[in-house]
Parts: sequence; structure tokens; C-alpha cells
Amino acid sequence: MSYTFDPIGIVHSCFKEKFGIPRQPGLIPEAEGRLEILPPYNRPEAFRQLDGYSHLWITFVFHAAIREQWSPTVRPPRLGGNQRVGVFASRSPFRPNPIGLSVVKLHSISCSQDQFVLHLGGIDLLDGTPVLDIKPYLPYSDAIPDAHTGYAPEPPAHHITLTFSAQAESILKELPRSRSDHLRRLIQQILANDPRPAYLQADTSLREFGMQLYDYNIRWQVGEDRACITRIEQLTDH
Amino acid sequence: MSYTFDPIGIVHSCFKEKFGIPRQPGLIPEAEGRLEILPPYNRPEAFRQLDGYSHLWITFVFHAAIREQWSPTVRPPRLGGNQRVGVFASRSPFRPNPIGLSVVKLHSISCSQDQFVLHLGGIDLLDGTPVLDIKPYLPYSDAIPDAHTGYAPEPPAHHITLTFSAQAESILKELPRSRSDHLRRLIQQILANDPRPAYLQADTSLREFGMQLYDYNIRWQVGEDRACITRIEQLTDH
Repeated sequence: MSYTFDPIGIVHSCFKEKFGIPRQPGLIPEAEGRLEILPPYNRPEAFRQLDGYSHLWITFVFHAAIREQWSPTVRPPRLGGNQRVGVFASRSPFRPNPIGLSVVKLHSISCSQDQFVLHLGGIDLLDGTPVLDIKPYLPYSDAIPDAHTGYAPEPPAHHITLTFSAQAESILKELPRSRSDHLRRLIQQILANDPRPAYLQADTSLREFGMQLYDYNIRWQVGEDRACITRIEQLTDH
Repeated sequence: MSYTFDPIGIVHSCFKEKFGIPRQPGLIPEAEGRLEILPPYNRPEAFRQLDGYSHLWITFVFHAAIREQWSPTVRPPRLGGNQRVGVFASRSPFRPNPIGLSVVKLHSISCSQDQFVLHLGGIDLLDGTPVLDIKPYLPYSDAIPDAHTGYAPEPPAHHITLTFSAQAESILKELPRSRSDHLRRLIQQILANDPRPAYLQADTSLREFGMQLYDYNIRWQVGEDRACITRIEQLTDH
């Protein structure tokens, strides 16, 4: 018996590629996205009283992690990437049914003509993510602060000092203040969560990394407890 | 674009019918179930290190609530059943994609020959529920105790005094002590959550209700703050 589902919405995210996305939602409060509801679900009645909730569950498809084959074990980044745990003991996107689950902040809801959009914060969702369901977060059943965990008891914590090159500063200074402040905070939070693959996290060769955020290409170098944004380029195909 | 998923497991639940199932998981700690993993997923490697977690997310199909049509609003029992809210502002099983989400307690894991079973507690799952995914509960991202809620801020709380008729007592006394103690606690917890439809909750006519738990038919009457189990019958088709 199979079950077939059609998306009810699509995420427009600051994360345009997988590299840089935090490993869980909530770790990067500044990570914002728009969840555009698809017809025929883009009707205000279907969301009546949702604005009373601060957080939502998003059930989605890991659309960039769909594979023909499944593997019974995965190597979680939290274990340095070289120890295997069961796929069902992980939140890996590579799973028999590539269904994702994220709790996100509901900032606001906007509605114009037939466009119905939920504005979300703290997301860990790739741009273009198909959403299957939205549910309100109910702390009385969903919040279990003293649940025991296995190998990932604490969020990864880093403190880094971030600097911007003269070129990066010049790009940020051209932007409206609220936009550049947002980008600075977003970049700071992403680097504090160290998106580098585990096998490179001890690397001290000042290798350059890059990722796309919105329509900017961001490049940086990381030292032990500091990082420098070496370059910001606006992509022109937007 | 549609997405098709095959179940990875099936729930064998104490709840054999929808009536009596709590409206959220965790409200009835005594509600137990076995999640039987289906081939080819019934491999111990796929669950390696899962036993370190106390709680799991179960993503499942509301298989008894699948409808051809969807309605943009539902009438939540918490609002007395006569006020409509948006389907996406509810956890109703009647939703565009009938996908359910429950956090449950992981009691133990058992494995014999090709049978691989997770023993769960605090479930709100109907017998036969197809499970699409299992994920570990991570309190650092999943637990948000101070999330704001809309119309359902608190769990429904009732205190009832429960008595058993002589007939019900005689059936319970025939069972092994641990089994009868479990059944008593389970019934007490279910009735404390008042499974009656909202329009009958103010009913004082001592109408009789019934539900199937395991292979027992349980019948009871409810007064204002007390309930009596009038009859327990073992079903013979098992």
C-alpha cells in the first residue's frame, strides 16, 4: 500500500544550496523564508486562527536528497562524519521516505489577490522545498525538554569573531541598513554553526569556502575561532 | 509534482477504534503500542543507537481519515465542536495530506528472527496505522516550552472518580495482576481525557458509552466528576 501526496506549498528560502543550511531548525534565528501556499490551499479560511501560534511544524520533502536506494546507516556530522548510526536514529535527509520535519517561527501571514504567504524564521529549509503539511506547535504535547538523547545531546556551539574584507564591506554599505544588518547577522549565525564538513573542521590551512545566500555569493576563510568574509558578490541572473 | 511513500512499519495499538483515542500523544502515558517494522527496513543496523533516545517522532498516515475532498475549516473538539478554525491551524486528521505527527515514548526495542518491533508508550495511534518515518526527538531543537498557542493553550484537564461494576471487577480479577493494573490505569486515563464528543460533554443523562481496548469491549457511564465501568467483555474473535 502506497500513499501519494501533493505539496500544499513551496518554500522560498535564503538558502539557495545545501551547504550552509543548519543541521536543525532554530539554530539560526535570522534564517528567514517565505512559504507560498499553492492553489487550491491558498484560501484564508484554511489558516483561520493560525496567527495565534508562535511556532509551526513544517512537514516537507527533502527534494534534493531523493535517492533510488536507501542505506540502513548514515554518518552524522555530529559524530565527526566517520561513525555510523541507524538512519532512523538520525535526522539525516537520506532516509527511506525522504520526509523532513522542522519547527519554525511564524513571523506573519500575508495575503494579496491569490498569493497567500507564511513568513517564517529559524528555518533549515532549502529553497524550493515542497511542503506537505503545516500544523500548529502545541507545547503541552510537543515540548519535552527533559527527553533523553543519544549521541547528539547538545547543539553544536561555537564562538567566532567575524570580520569583513574591504570588498565585502563595500557591498554591504550599498544596501539599505536593515538589509545589510540582516545579512551580517545571518552570516554570523551560519558561521557560528560551522557548516564545513566534519573532516575539514580541524583544517587550519585557511581554505576558502563559499555559499549562496539569497542572490549573493559569500566567500570566507575560517581560522580556529575567527572567520573573515573575503568576498560578497551579487549574482546578476536574478 | 506528487510524492509517493511506502510505509516502513505498522502500529499494533491498544486503540482498536477511533473513539477513545486521546487528541494528542502523551496525554495517556499508559496507552501502549507495538510498532512493527516492515521488510526491508526490519534490520537492526537501521536503528543502531536509537535506544539512547527516550522519545521518538512518528510520522504516519491517518488511514481512517482519508477523504476524496478536503475542507478548509474544521471544528476542533477543544472549542466545543461548534466553532470553525482553519485546517492548518488544527491537528485534525482530516487535512489535505492526511499526515499525522506524534511524539511517543520509546520503551524498548525487540528483535527476533525477522521481527523487529519498537515498544511505544503515550501513543494516540489507531491500530493498523501505517508509519512513514521515525526520527529521534531532539529537545534542543524540538522542545519550545514557551511557544505561544492560539485556541488550545492547555491540555484538557479533568478529575474523575472511577468505579467498576461487580461484572467488570470479576473480569479484571481473572487477569494476571500486571495486566489488570494496566487496564485499570489505561481506562482511568482515557476517561480523564473525556473521549465523548463535545456536544455530549455536558450531558448528564448517564448515557452509556463503549469502546474497544485490545480485545475487550469496555462500557461506561459518566456523571459530572465520576464514571462507572458498567461492563467489560472479552471479544472472542481474537
